[in-house]
Amino acid sequence: MNPLATTPRTRLHRKPVRGSYDRALAYRILDEALVAHVGFAVDQQPFVIPMFFARQGDTLLLHGAAASRLLASGARGLPLCVTVTLLDGLVLARSHFHHSVNYRSVVLMGTAHEIEDRDGKFAASAAFVDHVVPGRSREARPPTDKELAATRMLAMPIDEGSVKVREGGPIDDEEDFMVPCWSGHIPVGLVTSAPIPDPRTREPMPSAISEMAGRPRD
Amino acid sequence: MNPLATTPRTRLHRKPVRGSYDRALAYRILDEALVAHVGFAVDQQPFVIPMFFARQGDTLLLHGAAASRLLASGARGLPLCVTVTLLDGLVLARSHFHHSVNYRSVVLMGTAHEIEDRDGKFAASAAFVDHVVPGRSREARPPTDKELAATRMLAMPIDEGSVKVREGGPIDDEEDFMVPCWSGHIPVGLVTSAPIPDPRTREPMPSAISEMAGRPRD
Repeated sequence: MNPLATTPRTRLHRKPVRGSYDRALAYRILDEALVAHVGFAVDQQPFVIPMFFARQGDTLLLHGAAASRLLASGARGLPLCVTVTLLDGLVLARSHFHHSVNYRSVVLMGTAHEIEDRDGKFAASAAFVDHVVPGRSREARPPTDKELAATRMLAMPIDEGSVKVREGGPIDDEEDFMVPCWSGHIPVGLVTSAPIPDPRTREPMPSAISEMAGRPRD
Repeated sequence: MNPLATTPRTRLHRKPVRGSYDRALAYRILDEALVAHVGFAVDQQPFVIPMFFARQGDTLLLHGAAASRLLASGARGLPLCVTVTLLDGLVLARSHFHHSVNYRSVVLMGTAHEIEDRDGKFAASAAFVDHVVPGRSREARPPTDKELAATRMLAMPIDEGSVKVREGGPIDDEEDFMVPCWSGHIPVGLVTSAPIPDPRTREPMPSAISEMAGRPRD
């Protein structure tokens, strides 16, 4: 059976990239991802820095060395753009033009304030560690006052932003179905390998960590 | 045997994050990665957009819909910052403070010009497709003039930039080796799953694609 014709009107429905303002979806993306690309501008010169991050409720947390230029800028209340992207697949169409990638991304705009109180920094430290491995903050040694002083932490309310998702296979033009070219998509994802113990570790590997090996990170 | 003492001087040698200006390393990172985070600024407001990209010799190529705000800005010669990051591992230290991630990143600064000639856009189209799967541009239908007109392509010389790499396990403080906490690192990487053919594809899956399944993408 032939498919229905592809017209400009049906094309909209098949559009593979969906934009939304879905907060729950944004949070799932943020919680799965481990790297944010944080942008700020100084005199029209943009800087985009990869950073580890964490989410604490409706707040995005960033941290780094107290001397970091980005964090000092953010602490001065400069506008930030924080973008988080998960790559989900390679889309191989019958034409160059319709090649694509599948992804989920969140773009957040806002300004951050510095977390300066000890309790706030202490809680943020746990959030960062638990973003690497949930529950890990209770096993590792919490930060000393000296370590907290050496770390600048920023909090940005998660308020203004958007989500984009592309999923599924290629959307070829009807006339290209005759092109003798394999077409489809290839899922990709971040997978964890076997953990490598530190040479001086004497503790058994926690099951939360050993169970991560070979599994998708999500 | 006890390790040598950690002093401020030896600490520099053990510093897990290495910065460099190694062009060959930058190119390996760019060629392995599939997503760039492209930053530009409009009146101090930064924008960071995830984009597919390709490398053509010493030039970084970006593309998108002719109407794209980012690409229009880039074509006007605004300064761009293009950052590409590969996540390589989770680093679980004995202290919160020394938790980290392993990664390789490239930060490129520059301005782009629009590729306007047909031959240049044609060659760039092939570079984008071959960045998804090497050699794929020869199998899929090349772009029509109409498709080329609908696509804005930017070229940015790869000139000013830097590379950062963090690798290996945690660097714990000497006094934390007594903390009863498993310590080590967990490699992570992008892995491809079995390709999913388009329902209407009639061609056999090329070996270049079937061989990607279950393998690290690099």
